[in-house]
Amino acid sequence: MVFDSKIRPITWENGVSKMLDQTIIPYEYKYVNITTGQDMFDAIRNMIVRGAPAIGIAGAQGIVLYAQEGRGIYNNINEFKTWLLEKADYMATSRPTAVNLMWACEEQKKIINEFHYDIDELIQKLTAKAIEIELDDIQRCIKIGEYGAEVVPKGATILTHCNAGALATGGYGTALGVVRSAYAKDNTIQVFADETRPRQQGARLTTFELAMDGIPVTLITDGMCSYFMNKGMIDMVVVGADRIAANGDTANKIGTYTVAIAAKYHNIPFYIAAPLSTIDTSIKTGKEIPIEERSHEEVTHINGKRICAEGINIINPGFDVTPHELITGIITEKGILRPDYNQSIADAFSNKACV
Amino acid sequence: MVFDSKIRPITWENGVSKMLDQTIIPYEYKYVNITTGQDMFDAIRNMIVRGAPAIGIAGAQGIVLYAQEGRGIYNNINEFKTWLLEKADYMATSRPTAVNLMWACEEQKKIINEFHYDIDELIQKLTAKAIEIELDDIQRCIKIGEYGAEVVPKGATILTHCNAGALATGGYGTALGVVRSAYAKDNTIQVFADETRPRQQGARLTTFELAMDGIPVTLITDGMCSYFMNKGMIDMVVVGADRIAANGDTANKIGTYTVAIAAKYHNIPFYIAAPLSTIDTSIKTGKEIPIEERSHEEVTHINGKRICAEGINIINPGFDVTPHELITGIITEKGILRPDYNQSIADAFSNKACV
Repeated sequence: MVFDSKIRPITWENGVSKMLDQTIIPYEYKYVNITTGQDMFDAIRNMIVRGAPAIGIAGAQGIVLYAQEGRGIYNNINEFKTWLLEKADYMATSRPTAVNLMWACEEQKKIINEFHYDIDELIQKLTAKAIEIELDDIQRCIKIGEYGAEVVPKGATILTHCNAGALATGGYGTALGVVRSAYAKDNTIQVFADETRPRQQGARLTTFELAMDGIPVTLITDGMCSYFMNKGMIDMVVVGADRIAANGDTANKIGTYTVAIAAKYHNIPFYIAAPLSTIDTSIKTGKEIPIEERSHEEVTHINGKRICAEGINIINPGFDVTPHELITGIITEKGILRPDYNQSIADAFSNKACV
Repeated sequence: MVFDSKIRPITWENGVSKMLDQTIIPYEYKYVNITTGQDMFDAIRNMIVRGAPAIGIAGAQGIVLYAQEGRGIYNNINEFKTWLLEKADYMATSRPTAVNLMWACEEQKKIINEFHYDIDELIQKLTAKAIEIELDDIQRCIKIGEYGAEVVPKGATILTHCNAGALATGGYGTALGVVRSAYAKDNTIQVFADETRPRQQGARLTTFELAMDGIPVTLITDGMCSYFMNKGMIDMVVVGADRIAANGDTANKIGTYTVAIAAKYHNIPFYIAAPLSTIDTSIKTGKEIPIEERSHEEVTHINGKRICAEGINIINPGFDVTPHELITGIITEKGILRPDYNQSIADAFSNKACV
């Protein structure tokens, strides 16, 4: 069953990217127009748009924006293509960890590399691809939701970390797609949302989108998860992913690994929910996933105010890697992948049936 | 070796409690005068003073403040004592989890219950006891520091949660007493401090007091601990305690249990540092420790600004219980207690030698 969610964080309208500004939620719910490639690069880097699938869509749109700019600069199709390929590579570097961004930029590069007579025709094809990636993502999330809902016990309390919701995708969400589909079948389920310091995506975004959709949500601080697991108040954990290696090791928002260890200690199922585009079969293990080091101010300041002493050290890794042995299953649009992940991931990419 | 630390969060001067206001650190370093029993009750409840040993001192002083007030109300020593015993019981309820507060109030009640001719004499004895508890606490912390320093490896990075420092005690600290003593012997050690949401005692207080003492400290968010453990960057964990059961189960600031599970997963030693007054031998296991439920605003607001959506649920337990099987040792002023804790705790109270 599909739950009706209206949240669309990023869409394409009349040659412009219309983007929900996620840095000001829950205080304001405001769309901004992104009209240039560089503005899209900055919007991704500064997390106006965030979430692995959503920044894939954003990257694809950003290349269209560059293409529109290039039309005024180049008349020669080959010069145009050379320039645009460089811009596509640049767009892919706006954030380093989520592989969906690289995947989406590669999809656009394939189109650029195809034979074209005409700049306008190429721009039309790139535009169509960006729209396709967005709409496909919503459909993939709905499928992820349906597969995931099958493993949600009746009346379950589902713990999630960060925001892998409608806001992180074309719409509907991956981890929260599972929640929405489960809630459509059983309105006694509920969510516990980790705050997710430093950027507080759980507090700011997950509580916002679940409250907006009327799904019961309890906000907890990141350190509390084990307390509630110990009390028997958490039935399962479902989180998103930024990049999954061929062996199932999963990079996701910093703090996910801690939740996974706590879930293992309490024998609570721990699921990843992500489209296959999040799986990077070119890397064997999580050790090869680059971890973004982000601004120290994210740790030292909240809402512009310093929260700690001066003259101290900060390290701010944006992601951590949960090893495959802590993961109960990976919920994809082709079904739930189970250990051994090397095998089940290979099968999913070769279109074999999943468990 | 004793490290020279100047921080004194609470002292007694001329019939008044002089208290460092810990709610405004690190923005301001300001002492306030607490002059009435009710003001002391509120100062403990609102965490102007916090930390299990420090609120023990505060409770003892608060009973002196009530006694000074009672002098103007009662001329009859027996009426005075009856009234003051009620006030002592009331003071003990200002916070429910830390047992040091109850212990200190009981110490004062013993004095009240002794035979006295004279109200002034009783007040002098209560005053002397409050000062003794404060000064003894510093000496106990120094001993805890010395025992603890023996198990700190050369050049170690020590992770701590919340603030079990000079600010949480009469001075010097329990967990940070171990850090100070270790640093006095080996200035290549360093500290990683968990932010400790919701109240951020790690960010606000631990970074402040370590920076003030020139001990290197890195602030991390609560979810990051496992990431750094996995990277081999944490050599040991040392935290304080609010109440320890006879079997070693330990209540401490919410989030401690999560750190303990992560330490176990990575085979990193996890120590509690606390004076024997934190051990409540009247309770067998941690299940009997009452857990304070605190204001929801601590979770939903930071520096007065809301950080999440409206219309959501909150649960805010102030503490969690780390089961004894996750604890490598309990560092006390009589030495380091090791499993089996039922035995080693009983031995410590019967003045046998510790390991």
